[in-house]
Amino acid sequence: GASRLSGFGESVFSEMSRLAVEHEAINLGQGFPDFPGPDLVKHAAATAINADLNQYAPSHGLPRLRRAIATTFEQSYGRAVDPDAEVTVTSGATEALLATLLAILEPGDEVILIEPFYDAYPAQVVFAGGVPRYVPLQAPGWSLDLDALAAAISPRTRAIVLNTPHNPTGKVFSREELAGIAALCQEHDLIAISDEVYDRIIFDGAVHVPLATLPGMWERTVTVNSTGKTFSMTGWKVGYAIAASALTRAIRTTHQFITFATATPFQDAMAAAMEDALTSNYYAELAAMYTRLRDQLHQALEGAGLPVLPCRGSYFLLADISGLGFDTDVAFCRFLTTEVGVAAIPPSAFYADPATAPLLARFCFAKRPETIAAAAERLSALA
Amino acid sequence: GASRLSGFGESVFSEMSRLAVEHEAINLGQGFPDFPGPDLVKHAAATAINADLNQYAPSHGLPRLRRAIATTFEQSYGRAVDPDAEVTVTSGATEALLATLLAILEPGDEVILIEPFYDAYPAQVVFAGGVPRYVPLQAPGWSLDLDALAAAISPRTRAIVLNTPHNPTGKVFSREELAGIAALCQEHDLIAISDEVYDRIIFDGAVHVPLATLPGMWERTVTVNSTGKTFSMTGWKVGYAIAASALTRAIRTTHQFITFATATPFQDAMAAAMEDALTSNYYAELAAMYTRLRDQLHQALEGAGLPVLPCRGSYFLLADISGLGFDTDVAFCRFLTTEVGVAAIPPSAFYADPATAPLLARFCFAKRPETIAAAAERLSALA
Ligand SMILES: CSCCC(=O)C(=O)O
Ligand SMILES: CSCCC(=O)C(=O)O
Repeated sequence: GASRLSGFGESVFSEMSRLAVEHEAINLGQGFPDFPGPDLVKHAAATAINADLNQYAPSHGLPRLRRAIATTFEQSYGRAVDPDAEVTVTSGATEALLATLLAILEPGDEVILIEPFYDAYPAQVVFAGGVPRYVPLQAPGWSLDLDALAAAISPRTRAIVLNTPHNPTGKVFSREELAGIAALCQEHDLIAISDEVYDRIIFDGAVHVPLATLPGMWERTVTVNSTGKTFSMTGWKVGYAIAASALTRAIRTTHQFITFATATPFQDAMAAAMEDALTSNYYAELAAMYTRLRDQLHQALEGAGLPVLPCRGSYFLLADISGLGFDTDVAFCRFLTTEVGVAAIPPSAFYADPATAPLLARFCFAKRPETIAAAAERLSALA
Repeated sequence: GASRLSGFGESVFSEMSRLAVEHEAINLGQGFPDFPGPDLVKHAAATAINADLNQYAPSHGLPRLRRAIATTFEQSYGRAVDPDAEVTVTSGATEALLATLLAILEPGDEVILIEPFYDAYPAQVVFAGGVPRYVPLQAPGWSLDLDALAAAISPRTRAIVLNTPHNPTGKVFSREELAGIAALCQEHDLIAISDEVYDRIIFDGAVHVPLATLPGMWERTVTVNSTGKTFSMTGWKVGYAIAASALTRAIRTTHQFITFATATPFQDAMAAAMEDALTSNYYAELAAMYTRLRDQLHQALEGAGLPVLPCRGSYFLLADISGLGFDTDVAFCRFLTTEVGVAAIPPSAFYADPATAPLLARFCFAKRPETIAAAAERLSALA
């Protein structure tokens, strides 16, 4: 293998999912729903397949889906988006991120990642010839130290990757924090790559603010999203990037040589889903459902003696495992999967130096109430 | 945009498809069927969707599909493949190629491309930090000069990309030619990336020989394929890479950070398709159908006064346009699309220096007989 692979092995999601299957554990690890997505979306996909929408879509996406994405963003966040010049459909948010990094980085350019980070970010920065620089959020409140962020910016810094709502902490960045980040991006002429895949999964009155909508940020922000999270079809791999036309042109050029295009029938089905959601209560009901599931899992964890950290967005909860006598979160998660029968993710996988990670475990609550109840029963063995 | 984008704009396939729509031209440009894929495959996809196989597949592919790929390869080409260690499912052959290049290239490594080449290859080599080197096939017989190939190899050469059956020439590399390439790969310790997406679309008794099955090649060959071509579902984007375990490990690592995984229901449906084809006449019937379509298009082009070059594989025909008074194939293809109402692809897009391309036009015959008949009528205006 090439040297760019060094340090990157099987992802923690793949490893823990495999372990969960081997030990018949209830899988609260990798983030995906164990309940079906909306019938409307499934029917729309079957209809598209039967209507023979099965050949290449235009490389940058079906017009119908690009329009639905643009209209949805404008209706939700008040900023007009040009579906022809500012939207690119990709094979998942993961591809959108890589396409963006390949589109903007020169070899040796630095990219700031906020730690803990989704594990694909550093690998993708390296694949695109860049160098990751890390700025930690401070546990347990996960506040961002803007001075530390400013100090991490060098003349080689080209971009910053943000994630809000944030995986794995559940933090939803406030408008004030985003304004601080935006000011630094403008002062240092940085591109902001804002991974907002959990924008519809927010709780307790939290408000999601797309970084791109802050003053001066439209021209320098790439907003990455995923219909898989919002419509509970993570296996369809329909993601997208919204960006001003100059950035979009560059992203479309790289996208065309990464996957060329994304599954046509699922693009059409997701267009139907987003069109429906423009006039239904879908997003509010999704957030309400996830609030109930979060609260149920919260209770299960606390009932097992695991203190839970606040979570205002995403479908993950972090539990404090420092009182349980494990040296590392990996050791705890292996024990939990193999001995207790519940799989979780060790957040140290989201740190450049795993030794600096606080002792926590991440649990996914995109699961049926019965699944969470069954996990609760197993977890009670810990108490 | 980053400097790696320079020279790469909108692909010729996107451009010509767009022009075809604008001018209501019959689209014989970009390669995709205008007839439906098999009902069995469509039903299998709808069934998978309804069975809620809609969340992430394992990153390297559904076990059922990997098994079907391995069994099919062994049954067709006589070489056993380990589905667990030697197969990676990707979001199209395009992603398989990029995943491979990212997995093996160090910055500055050279990759030999045989010209004319599928337009994604040079862009992908550059994206992976490599430098393309070109070795031309000689028109009109498209023979490969092995001395020229040997001369193009330098101490920095890491890999060669082969494509057989070959787009756009219709050449099927013979076992002797492949043996010559294999000898050079072994002598110079090169990885061979063999794009064999048209392996089932062969005519006139031509035999497809996977490069990986030649003596000494298994450990150094990545075989790239695409279910989209074989089962007429180009828009589903289910491709794969077959390679010995060490190469597969590296490819899985990059794949996991390019798209992470490929559409689950379509993987399941393609597994069903390949399982069925193990005991049906599917591949023979596919080749027979394409033989008829090729012959029909051949007649249409010759009837219009366009001499056609031999084609033993792929779903493309090249026609000689040198007698028509156009300076470039691009000028001819624009004229043909806008004035005659038939879209074709200018093969100069498959050359590093378009000025060196012979005056030809590429026509796709993955089209219904009615489509080809309608195109014939329009083309007769040229005669
Ligand atoms: C592509 S695997 C990841 C799912 C996810 O986002 C997570 O578990 O963090
Ligand atoms: C991904 S677009 C290409 C289809 C094709 O292989 C071709 O037209 O050459």
